[in-house]
Amino acid sequence: MANGNLQTELLYPDLEAALESADMEGLQEICASLAAEDLAEMVNRLELLNQAIFFEKVPEDKATEIFQLLDVNIQEDILNAVSNQRVAAIINEMDPDNRTALLESLPQNATRQLLSFLKPRERKQAQRLLDFPKDSIGRLMTPDFLAIKQDWTVERVLDFIRRNGEDKETLNDIYVVDDKGRLIDEIGIREFLLSPLERVTQDIMDRQFVALPADHPEEEAILAFKKYSSRTALPVVDEEGYLLGIVTIDDILHLEEQEATEDIHKLGGVGALDDSYLDSSMMAMVKKRGVWLTVLFVGEMLTATAMGFFEKEISHAVILALFIPLIISSGGNAGSQAASLVLRAIALGEVQFQDIWTILRREIFVGLILGCLLGLIGLLRITVMSALFGTYGEHWFLIALTVYLSLIGVVAWGTIIGSLFPILLKRAGADPAASSAPFVATFIDVTGIVIYFNIALLLLKGKLL
Amino acid sequence: MANGNLQTELLYPDLEAALESADMEGLQEICASLAAEDLAEMVNRLELLNQAIFFEKVPEDKATEIFQLLDVNIQEDILNAVSNQRVAAIINEMDPDNRTALLESLPQNATRQLLSFLKPRERKQAQRLLDFPKDSIGRLMTPDFLAIKQDWTVERVLDFIRRNGEDKETLNDIYVVDDKGRLIDEIGIREFLLSPLERVTQDIMDRQFVALPADHPEEEAILAFKKYSSRTALPVVDEEGYLLGIVTIDDILHLEEQEATEDIHKLGGVGALDDSYLDSSMMAMVKKRGVWLTVLFVGEMLTATAMGFFEKEISHAVILALFIPLIISSGGNAGSQAASLVLRAIALGEVQFQDIWTILRREIFVGLILGCLLGLIGLLRITVMSALFGTYGEHWFLIALTVYLSLIGVVAWGTIIGSLFPILLKRAGADPAASSAPFVATFIDVTGIVIYFNIALLLLKGKLL
Repeated sequence: MANGNLQTELLYPDLEAALESADMEGLQEICASLAAEDLAEMVNRLELLNQAIFFEKVPEDKATEIFQLLDVNIQEDILNAVSNQRVAAIINEMDPDNRTALLESLPQNATRQLLSFLKPRERKQAQRLLDFPKDSIGRLMTPDFLAIKQDWTVERVLDFIRRNGEDKETLNDIYVVDDKGRLIDEIGIREFLLSPLERVTQDIMDRQFVALPADHPEEEAILAFKKYSSRTALPVVDEEGYLLGIVTIDDILHLEEQEATEDIHKLGGVGALDDSYLDSSMMAMVKKRGVWLTVLFVGEMLTATAMGFFEKEISHAVILALFIPLIISSGGNAGSQAASLVLRAIALGEVQFQDIWTILRREIFVGLILGCLLGLIGLLRITVMSALFGTYGEHWFLIALTVYLSLIGVVAWGTIIGSLFPILLKRAGADPAASSAPFVATFIDVTGIVIYFNIALLLLKGKLL
Repeated sequence: MANGNLQTELLYPDLEAALESADMEGLQEICASLAAEDLAEMVNRLELLNQAIFFEKVPEDKATEIFQLLDVNIQEDILNAVSNQRVAAIINEMDPDNRTALLESLPQNATRQLLSFLKPRERKQAQRLLDFPKDSIGRLMTPDFLAIKQDWTVERVLDFIRRNGEDKETLNDIYVVDDKGRLIDEIGIREFLLSPLERVTQDIMDRQFVALPADHPEEEAILAFKKYSSRTALPVVDEEGYLLGIVTIDDILHLEEQEATEDIHKLGGVGALDDSYLDSSMMAMVKKRGVWLTVLFVGEMLTATAMGFFEKEISHAVILALFIPLIISSGGNAGSQAASLVLRAIALGEVQFQDIWTILRREIFVGLILGCLLGLIGLLRITVMSALFGTYGEHWFLIALTVYLSLIGVVAWGTIIGSLFPILLKRAGADPAASSAPFVATFIDVTGIVIYFNIALLLLKGKLL
């Protein structure tokens, strides 16, 4: 049984040795015994110099296949390290969708240079794909698909596939177009494989198909693949229904993973990293995290300002200060919960802007119950401590009541803010994930202090204060 | 061009009307004009009574196709609402992998009852799949695949597919087994479609394949599909290499989405929801969130205890209390960042336990720099406020120094704890996502107070304190 991980572990030293001693036979042998994905994983670990040798020496088609599996930033380094001739060979052979992903990530002059290496037909195609807006479905698309006419027999279709299928990314779906090239049906290869050879395509068609508009955002493609989950490719059309290309599910799986990572990082208050955690340099890490941490810190400085307003009250009743972290962090936690739930619901397409009143109603209700729950625990604690040790003096009940009411107010407030932030951000055209939990928490820390001291003033004025 | 969402919107009232007036012809018409996924979306919105009518009246194969697309908890309700005869028809026709997902989610006696409805062959198969451990690859598997022998010609293979492919979930990959049923190769349908009819399978084989062990955890399947991203199905084998079934990519896409949702919810300090956000009842919501919020609250009560130890110091220097929220929340934010980065890196398989020292080294470095950065801003603020308004009295510089050093200590501490928690939890066999940001923040709130006041005592003893 093939076990890629074990094999790559064993063969890695051999690969390094073969490259360093220019042992072409050894290199060929290793390439023949492993899947492209395993080779890509090994190449990923090589020093840049050895990577360059690898891509210079391996046959062109194999080189391109492996090159396409690498991360875009590694592709960039390699293109800079190999000969121009090799660069031209690789980028001319790349799948159009992978090529777009590379070209769009490069600085403009590098993109221009690479485009100049392309053969006229490929260049025109690459240019057309780049003309679609960033993060649109058009940018994910490959224009290599199989289109047939509805009067063809199954036999003719299979024959056509045999003769024209070689350079297509997938043969799992076949597209039926009319004389003008407009998409009229999508048929799984399954139907052709299971039908008698003499049946005509028309008799297989059900004219039910799902097409993605090329200029729509890529999120729509993710949602469509999730809904129509038996499809491994979906056709892409322009406004008039002309078939432009297809999007394949492998790109979607990566996109989905990428978006979840971004959301999780943002939820943790980190800008999205360009590289994986261990591949990011420490300085990149400091920068990405430092920026947000500083913004949060500056916001959080308002807590000191807010507390400054109540300095007199604190000095009269130091006991009040003891509960500040407890109260504001409970509000922050409740807010984080609400924000992460709503954020994910937005990402999954479960929640839209028109649901805002439903959400608000739910969250007020949930927030009040949660606030009462925590408030009761706080009330209980102060009561017990007072009964046992007399910790909170003669006004213990008023203090307990202050804490109780403050918790209800701050937790409900946190819940509402946490749930509304992502929806309102999304509505404003901003990224809802930017309403990350730390932002919500910081906002609630500051407002929570104000709520707490105002309740204290109301209840304790003339007694403790 | 087909636009599923618009069509379902338009046809939904018709569907309701057809069901309520028992208009079978209208029902048939609607079913014929929409994709199964669109019908499933509409059925999802129906009242349970109408759902029951729908599944009672629609032809068996269509009913099963749509039934399989619904969420498991809706499937349960429907099975309870339709006749036993219909239940038997549907669960006998379901794809084995979807059936396992339903059976494993039911209470034991319901599972037993459903199993009794199955035909002997199906029951044996269902039982065998349920025998695999929960969350294992075996539970994701469907045993309906196409296996061929290596001496068959392409023509024979295509013929075999035409005669036996009907009930197979995918025809995209064909599996070559030896005489005993051991997997010896996996070949994309593409190869057969592109090869001359008289070629023998042996000549197409490259004996390179990736097989998933049935008893391994499902996460391995996700990682394998991400790595071998051109595959839409992967074979599953037992320890001796016998081919048991296949896992298809549609299940993986859902699994990946589910796992990301769980991680995001846990990161926000919420137990994973069973239903989507809007489908969860408010009481379920209160329960899921209340439990964690209470645990966090009880933990956070230690902040009041910790501050209680320093009550005398606070009453001497109320000014010190003003900076508590700022300092502890900065530590918490730094911790959330580190935790979410490491958590995601673990989920993506980028980081293992043996990387712990690398991570520790990086995070100490990053934490100290970030702490210095925030500390400097704090120092600057106190200096400026002192110079302008004399806010902090004669000992302003010592206060500033206390805040500066505390921020370095607490931020570095938060960063280290936030990064180590997920790795250590994972190592201990627990879910790393349980080290959610709020937990890390609560832990750091309490310890941060201790750090802050100890530094204050050290610097300010005999001056302010």
